[in-house]
Amino acid sequence: MSRPYDIVGLKAALEGLRLEDNPALVKQKSRDFFWYSPILKSQLDAVVGDLVVTPRNTAEVVRIVEACHRLGIPVTPRGSGTGNYGQAMPLSGGVVLNMAEMRDITQIGPGRVVCGPGAIMAEIDAATRAHSGQELRMHPSTYATASIGGFLAGGSGGVGSINWGGLRDLGNVLSVEVVTMEASPRVLRLTGADLAKVMHAYGTNGIITEVEMPLTAAYDWVDIIVGFRDFAAAARFGNALGEQDGILTKLITPIAAPVPQRYFLRHRALVPDGASVVLVMLAPHARDAFALFCKRFGGAEILFDAGAVPTVDRAGLPSNVELSWNHTTLRALRVDPAITYLQVLYPFPDQLALVDAIHKRFPDDEVMGHLEFVRFDGRITCFGLPLIRFTDAARLNAIIRIHEDMGAPIFNPHRYTLEEGGMKQTDDVQLAFKREADPQGLLNPGKMVAWDNPDFDFASGKTYLYPSLEPSRA
Amino acid sequence: MSRPYDIVGLKAALEGLRLEDNPALVKQKSRDFFWYSPILKSQLDAVVGDLVVTPRNTAEVVRIVEACHRLGIPVTPRGSGTGNYGQAMPLSGGVVLNMAEMRDITQIGPGRVVCGPGAIMAEIDAATRAHSGQELRMHPSTYATASIGGFLAGGSGGVGSINWGGLRDLGNVLSVEVVTMEASPRVLRLTGADLAKVMHAYGTNGIITEVEMPLTAAYDWVDIIVGFRDFAAAARFGNALGEQDGILTKLITPIAAPVPQRYFLRHRALVPDGASVVLVMLAPHARDAFALFCKRFGGAEILFDAGAVPTVDRAGLPSNVELSWNHTTLRALRVDPAITYLQVLYPFPDQLALVDAIHKRFPDDEVMGHLEFVRFDGRITCFGLPLIRFTDAARLNAIIRIHEDMGAPIFNPHRYTLEEGGMKQTDDVQLAFKREADPQGLLNPGKMVAWDNPDFDFASGKTYLYPSLEPSRA
Repeated sequence: MSRPYDIVGLKAALEGLRLEDNPALVKQKSRDFFWYSPILKSQLDAVVGDLVVTPRNTAEVVRIVEACHRLGIPVTPRGSGTGNYGQAMPLSGGVVLNMAEMRDITQIGPGRVVCGPGAIMAEIDAATRAHSGQELRMHPSTYATASIGGFLAGGSGGVGSINWGGLRDLGNVLSVEVVTMEASPRVLRLTGADLAKVMHAYGTNGIITEVEMPLTAAYDWVDIIVGFRDFAAAARFGNALGEQDGILTKLITPIAAPVPQRYFLRHRALVPDGASVVLVMLAPHARDAFALFCKRFGGAEILFDAGAVPTVDRAGLPSNVELSWNHTTLRALRVDPAITYLQVLYPFPDQLALVDAIHKRFPDDEVMGHLEFVRFDGRITCFGLPLIRFTDAARLNAIIRIHEDMGAPIFNPHRYTLEEGGMKQTDDVQLAFKREADPQGLLNPGKMVAWDNPDFDFASGKTYLYPSLEPSRA
Repeated sequence: MSRPYDIVGLKAALEGLRLEDNPALVKQKSRDFFWYSPILKSQLDAVVGDLVVTPRNTAEVVRIVEACHRLGIPVTPRGSGTGNYGQAMPLSGGVVLNMAEMRDITQIGPGRVVCGPGAIMAEIDAATRAHSGQELRMHPSTYATASIGGFLAGGSGGVGSINWGGLRDLGNVLSVEVVTMEASPRVLRLTGADLAKVMHAYGTNGIITEVEMPLTAAYDWVDIIVGFRDFAAAARFGNALGEQDGILTKLITPIAAPVPQRYFLRHRALVPDGASVVLVMLAPHARDAFALFCKRFGGAEILFDAGAVPTVDRAGLPSNVELSWNHTTLRALRVDPAITYLQVLYPFPDQLALVDAIHKRFPDDEVMGHLEFVRFDGRITCFGLPLIRFTDAARLNAIIRIHEDMGAPIFNPHRYTLEEGGMKQTDDVQLAFKREADPQGLLNPGKMVAWDNPDFDFASGKTYLYPSLEPSRA
């Protein structure tokens, strides 16, 4: 793809900033984990930006945005590139705005931290733990490398959501600073209702330059793996454990056989053939209560307890964080490239029956059970991230339809647009803010269908295709 | 009541310990807040012990118990006497074992504190806050004076139960040390399933001499009072706020008009005529989200916000803690001695409809709404502590029956026995432990019906009367 952007003019305007146009490096920074999806893999593989710019502070972001606005060059903000949906991929080329260097942690107080969007979530926790025994409420399984800004711009929840729900819940983000894409860029501080304008908007309507997040008490969470005869028992255990108000956990993840045996290469020796598991992160002071809960539940066998195993025997074992959420898929993909996944909501109060019915509906080898228990509107229920053995797009869509017909909404991870991956309708708040904050449509083009094609019919069953990605232009 | 106990012999055996036999002081230490109930007030008013003994450590408790066992003298352990059900009242006289001096806080770590049973809950929090920004998960409204041992022995939950459920939930007590009432008293450490032996047993089967409790993050909770047009709206708001997974609160208390106007003497000027209120304790970092939640709820008017009021204007105002739970009743009682209360469970998921139906069933002036939202088996629901204008026992029992017939179980606060105040059936675990730990039945006699009268029929509708309390013996 060659484009008419005046990159030479842009470089001149940005003199003194950190610029990178080495094609290999630009390509690397133009990608994320889109290859989790075989659909996105073929659609987005050729996507590449023209220039990576790495600002060090908000003033530099303003300078970059001003220049790009004047020259009509698209800007796609990027954190660590750990998203799965092409969130940070520049569909129309132009500038990849690499926020990684804006990583300073500037304030820590009781229940709050303020930092740059490029701060890595594990590094935030390290700082807040050292400061005052605090940590973020939730994080994705890519915790060790994911940036907080990217999480706000494209994440939904993760480890910790069993206690706090999701990012969408009021109170789980305190404030953000955003730079608009205008001739004279504005620096806005958003709180309360205004946060919805830019959260999970993939940076299509503003560039997040600072975030303020709530903190909670940090503990030395203990990884435990519990084994069960079948997936239904594992799911029931997860649900019942989630409903234990006095047993503090941070992760409750049922995973069906044969996923642990096939794909958890370092753990497979711990898991008997045919056993399904529940991964748990437990507060150390909940150990006695958890042991009693397991005993009373019946049929729950503790296969691994990091608190009871010598450190040397844990060397090289991935943590439960890195077996859960999207890392479950990642581990399977590494072993078997034919594996992909879906994102399913099993609504309360029928979650267990629905999980059971849906998994009985499919061959065990085609749809493999993986649940993540969470709080959702004050109740314990579960999301599913089932592993799918991919055959073709038609079959994948059929699997999706069967889920939805049975009462389990799908958040489709095989789409790169906000609407198609989410609620399949226009987010009017985000669209209105884009009109205000990015009137020329230069921020992360192609990700908001409502902007590009207001008449697109989400109920049509068709997939939106951004013009830049049309095969004829490739 | 004169009794055949060899108090002279006991005093000799306990030489060097702190003993008190001044009748006025013994009477004072023989009482608790039983007078919340007009029924208990008449039944228990004459109850008095023979001697108050105040041990300073477990070794002294062992010495006291050994002597009392040898001499056949009853022992009734007592914390601060803030219970409501005669929990700490010596129905058969004998020794009142005042645990108040065993109040040392001996260990504080991440998520845990170890202390003596006499430690005052507010003092525990002061120490754990200063040490590491931690506090107890839950406490009663008598926080400022209640002992942790008394709370375990007779409490059920309170401020904080919106996050952690009740004391009954696994994980909300870590361990206790207990001394048995035997010829050679044993000192036992109970954890896990064994905790149920002595929790909420009123000290009938062991003397708690040390406790280990879980801690959570401490915040400078902000007292807020929100006003509503009617009680149903206040209840709906409380429920919806409880279901907000990202808005951290510690208390959500709807109270119907005219309770605040009549009985909250320092706050009455803040509450418009006819308004019902919800008391909230809010984490400071949840302010923006809470404001947005109130705005979206509609019809919620913030009447008082301690975070927005100069300190001088808050002087003399009781905290929300001391307007909530049993303090709501206390404030009403101080103004109008005809007021008493009930303890109601409105089961999930019908709690709001049940609250509404029950309150419509009674005159507003006879049953006044007071709810406390809590987590219960992983769901948000509410207990009720409705204020009752007492006329006679028959009408009180009729009100109880109507509640139960409508589907709302009552925990009767007008009974001094464990069974009648609770589940109306024998707790076999506690009974079995009493056989083992107090074979002579000397610990807090008269509180465990199953011990005194194994054939008592709880379904009979009759009230158990401990022989020492029979009018003829008074």
